[in-house]
Amino acid sequence: MKLIKTLAPAALLAAAPSLGMAQEAAAPDINPYIFTTLLFLVGGFLVFWMAAGFAMLEAGLVRSKNVTMQLTKNIALFSIAAIMYWLVGFGIMYPADWLIEGWLGPFFAVTSLEPVGLAAEDAALDYASAGSDFFFQLMFCATTASIVSGTLAERIKLWPFLIFVVVLTGFIYPIEASWQWGGGWLSEAGFSDFAGSTLVHAAGGFAALAGAIVLGPRIGKYKDGKTVPMPGSNLALATLGTFILWLGWFGFNGGSQLAMGTVGDVTDVSRIFANTNMAAAAGAVAALLLTQVMYGKPDLTMTLNGALAGLVSITAEPLAPSLFGALLTGGVGGVIVVLTVPMLDKLKIDDVVGAIPVHLIAGIWGTLAVAFYTGNWGAQIMGIIAIGAFVFITSLVVWIILKAVMGIRVDEEAEINGLDMSELGMEAYPEFSKG
Amino acid sequence: MKLIKTLAPAALLAAAPSLGMAQEAAAPDINPYIFTTLLFLVGGFLVFWMAAGFAMLEAGLVRSKNVTMQLTKNIALFSIAAIMYWLVGFGIMYPADWLIEGWLGPFFAVTSLEPVGLAAEDAALDYASAGSDFFFQLMFCATTASIVSGTLAERIKLWPFLIFVVVLTGFIYPIEASWQWGGGWLSEAGFSDFAGSTLVHAAGGFAALAGAIVLGPRIGKYKDGKTVPMPGSNLALATLGTFILWLGWFGFNGGSQLAMGTVGDVTDVSRIFANTNMAAAAGAVAALLLTQVMYGKPDLTMTLNGALAGLVSITAEPLAPSLFGALLTGGVGGVIVVLTVPMLDKLKIDDVVGAIPVHLIAGIWGTLAVAFYTGNWGAQIMGIIAIGAFVFITSLVVWIILKAVMGIRVDEEAEINGLDMSELGMEAYPEFSKG
Amino acid sequence: MKLIKTLAPAALLAAAPSLGMAQEAAAPDINPYIFTTLLFLVGGFLVFWMAAGFAMLEAGLVRSKNVTMQLTKNIALFSIAAIMYWLVGFGIMYPADWLIEGWLGPFFAVTSLEPVGLAAEDAALDYASAGSDFFFQLMFCATTASIVSGTLAERIKLWPFLIFVVVLTGFIYPIEASWQWGGGWLSEAGFSDFAGSTLVHAAGGFAALAGAIVLGPRIGKYKDGKTVPMPGSNLALATLGTFILWLGWFGFNGGSQLAMGTVGDVTDVSRIFANTNMAAAAGAVAALLLTQVMYGKPDLTMTLNGALAGLVSITAEPLAPSLFGALLTGGVGGVIVVLTVPMLDKLKIDDVVGAIPVHLIAGIWGTLAVAFYTGNWGAQIMGIIAIGAFVFITSLVVWIILKAVMGIRVDEEAEINGLDMSELGMEAYPEFSKG
Repeated sequence: MKLIKTLAPAALLAAAPSLGMAQEAAAPDINPYIFTTLLFLVGGFLVFWMAAGFAMLEAGLVRSKNVTMQLTKNIALFSIAAIMYWLVGFGIMYPADWLIEGWLGPFFAVTSLEPVGLAAEDAALDYASAGSDFFFQLMFCATTASIVSGTLAERIKLWPFLIFVVVLTGFIYPIEASWQWGGGWLSEAGFSDFAGSTLVHAAGGFAALAGAIVLGPRIGKYKDGKTVPMPGSNLALATLGTFILWLGWFGFNGGSQLAMGTVGDVTDVSRIFANTNMAAAAGAVAALLLTQVMYGKPDLTMTLNGALAGLVSITAEPLAPSLFGALLTGGVGGVIVVLTVPMLDKLKIDDVVGAIPVHLIAGIWGTLAVAFYTGNWGAQIMGIIAIGAFVFITSLVVWIILKAVMGIRVDEEAEINGLDMSELGMEAYPEFSKG
Repeated sequence: MKLIKTLAPAALLAAAPSLGMAQEAAAPDINPYIFTTLLFLVGGFLVFWMAAGFAMLEAGLVRSKNVTMQLTKNIALFSIAAIMYWLVGFGIMYPADWLIEGWLGPFFAVTSLEPVGLAAEDAALDYASAGSDFFFQLMFCATTASIVSGTLAERIKLWPFLIFVVVLTGFIYPIEASWQWGGGWLSEAGFSDFAGSTLVHAAGGFAALAGAIVLGPRIGKYKDGKTVPMPGSNLALATLGTFILWLGWFGFNGGSQLAMGTVGDVTDVSRIFANTNMAAAAGAVAALLLTQVMYGKPDLTMTLNGALAGLVSITAEPLAPSLFGALLTGGVGGVIVVLTVPMLDKLKIDDVVGAIPVHLIAGIWGTLAVAFYTGNWGAQIMGIIAIGAFVFITSLVVWIILKAVMGIRVDEEAEINGLDMSELGMEAYPEFSKG
Repeated sequence: MKLIKTLAPAALLAAAPSLGMAQEAAAPDINPYIFTTLLFLVGGFLVFWMAAGFAMLEAGLVRSKNVTMQLTKNIALFSIAAIMYWLVGFGIMYPADWLIEGWLGPFFAVTSLEPVGLAAEDAALDYASAGSDFFFQLMFCATTASIVSGTLAERIKLWPFLIFVVVLTGFIYPIEASWQWGGGWLSEAGFSDFAGSTLVHAAGGFAALAGAIVLGPRIGKYKDGKTVPMPGSNLALATLGTFILWLGWFGFNGGSQLAMGTVGDVTDVSRIFANTNMAAAAGAVAALLLTQVMYGKPDLTMTLNGALAGLVSITAEPLAPSLFGALLTGGVGGVIVVLTVPMLDKLKIDDVVGAIPVHLIAGIWGTLAVAFYTGNWGAQIMGIIAIGAFVFITSLVVWIILKAVMGIRVDEEAEINGLDMSELGMEAYPEFSKG
């Protein structure tokens, strides 16, 4: 009974006959604003947590001589993303005025949140606090960069990588994301990507693919037509990273409902949680079974990547499918990973942690699968091609420039000795002798 | 001011004189629905996180030659639980129509969540979204399976274990849980188990005990009447796992309030959080002090298990006790662990991580302790016996069948060399040489 | 429309003409109570999670021969804090009646939460549940103790350390915190410390500093005027710990808004989340760049500590700054760490994990920086001096007494062999041979 607390009874009674015309005199319902803001905050901290997941996954899947470097890259890339997205990214992604209508947002809009307390006056009818929205969206930008670091591990120099992150998080990601989530041309064209199978995951994968091509494979990875296994140094960390990512994904997909203040919205968030979990489980089981069938032994890293591929696959449409639909979508994701990891190796594209199969290929699958629900195959294909082409080409250009200007690869001796000692002078596990 | 926003003023005024008869004309208060759904979602992701906790705890407490296997089991069992609980478990546990009234739910009720948007029309008077409830309950089913994997580590084959998980999560757990939480015969009989000291933890412990008996101890564990210590390979991981479980338990117990939309409910959730924390702290301190007294040195793994036993102990009744009551309940749990771990070894029941003392014995203690508040000792004892007998016997039968049909134990050479290389061909820490 | 659901229509109609005088007859708005309670619960479990962060950070930064001890200390100190804060701390910190007005709360007020259900009757107009508030505040007390354990690692005995924790969490922290947050003399004097840059972090740092002075440096740390590096054994764990702390800090600072039931409050919480993240990112980037410039190589542990120093710096005022202000505040924090770590070594104060630069020095910086917004430099300086002097002197006295009565340092042989084997008889990584 908010009415009684916030309006004098006389005013209430006086207002009654003309309620229709005097809606602004009544206290608005503030709860939807609070609920949706809360969704952004909880969803945002869960997606933040994915940064730790990527760090652990990648630290576990590289060899111990490169672990310190991989950790350094991960904490640095998140921090850079946080700064660049504030400085230019958010302004580009959600343009008040476009530089080129629907295609390119403004470069000069440093994000500033409203001063304290001001919001209390006027914001009641808005749908959520701008700060919570910024916090949430920032995490997606950082995720895109996290995807790249795994693929290029064990041979790329720190600073060129971080300069690439500056460009990716400040410009490349915000521009392509503005096409859809900023209300740009792709959203007009009927493309659908609920939480970012393509906008975030495939985009990160395309940037990684461009880098892997320019950078080349690790020394000794492909020898006499064979792929030499280079097993990760710590599968417990890799598993921990996968569980962290799985947890964070509830925020990633659930928060992308972008509203929690109505029965319909919170019910949809719930359905998204259940579907997201189902897709991950199905991806893991699919990869476990398929590696058993194909190789006679189940493969833990494939199973972990299967779970992640299930998550990426459901990300483009976590709401429409039934639980059975989520199981199918995620299961196919798990199968994709098992089948495409060896294909990449045949192409001599060296992806240390399997990020391209997981994020790029399963991301494309998930985005295409949306058309089972919308029927609009053309728009889905167009979106994937447009974003893929833009991210791949711009990334390729940046990588080529970086290679020409400063070099992006450590020298042979440094690579063989490990980046930790040669580049950083610091081992991750200085007391554990190498086998 | 929801009323004014959702009803035309004329309708409002017209309805006023007949409010009693026209309740359906007024907009219902949707906030309790949203709050309770949110409780399930946040509680659910916290309990999900416990799956990571079990994985880390167990990976830290096995020897390094079995770590990859333990990780594989943990991610696989969670994924299987997610699928089985959807396919049959949830339908058995919360029967619309019982096969046998109060005892056995239907096997054919695949869970389907309501289609998107539909809920928005009618659900306002329900208490929470079905999807959030399913998501939350699923995590308890998975927890039950997690408990089993630790006890049987370092010697059981992967696939028989996973087949057992299929049966446990699809049938055994849902059936016994339906007796209480599905409104079955035990709930009618006055048994009380708030968040599952018996329904989840002791049940998992009974399934593990049956497995340990059928499987036998690890080679060399009991030699010439002595217990040979086989120390865990990574106590940092084990400690991390314990902290993760502690965190997740706030969702486990707090979420089991099953409502957050009233002052009373959210106040109770708060009390549950405070008591849960106190019981864990008391269990840890009790084990720390007791090992100091008994052995002259405090024991970290006992302290970790003491915290977990404190958590299990308070789970049957986290609401009624005062903070001092929670301290006593949890402290006794910690003492139980220190005293019963050696007893199990005397019986030559080889429980690698101490899951039986922590989950089964402390679970029984916690369930009995409820009677200090309800006075109904008989119902508590009956519930423990009924669930214990059902889970133990059905599990024993399944383990015996699995042993007869496909064998459940790796061969001697594989066990000595470690399951990682012999069963999976993949080491968890390939570069860290063994001491 | 709660009114209709909870009052008979007749009562409603009867009450209608006198609504103004009969406000107590109307159902109060319960949503702010629920929202704020929820803020405490979510904020509280996030700050709880910081205990795991400290454990991982410290376990990663000590040498492997001391890891079990460091883990034991961390889980024990949290558990002790939970018990002491209940037994005396909370009562001292939030006095109903002061022993010495504004300076010293009562020692006899064991915390008891209201019995179940009672709250439902009367609490509706209160602002949040007492249990949630206790749960939240407890976590800050435990954090203070966590800070101390890192500095004193690798040479302090377990039990004297834990006795110090008893005094710190039961008395020293609650007394100084009561001066500000309990409504004592400092809050009257205009001092401002939003979430505890000084009350928690610098206080923990002062207690650690006193301990480091009494305890002395590790054997071999300072030799012939040089500082001998003793690198941490597991930088993956240290990085994980940093990410955990970063995540937990959203609860630490965001929860300290202490209210979420209005548009203004939840908007402020959002702004705090965004600023907290920015300060951490800026601290990390500042340390990364500065170590590159100063040493020619970026330093991962400095970067991790830079992020933490950024977090500590923004904690005293996470709400007033713009994002740019947060970037500056946090960036200066990162610079402080890089510059002060070598200074401490020059003073031969051996701080194993860098807790004094991170928590004490950056904490002072953050507290001073509040004056840029309040203008009241005098109050900030006075608060820092008062709390610093009180915590440092009382801690020093306790450490000196402990040293005299029971000794606080392990003997030389035990220190060289490592505390794990000599004090606990248990290695953290028994199978990984030492380099």
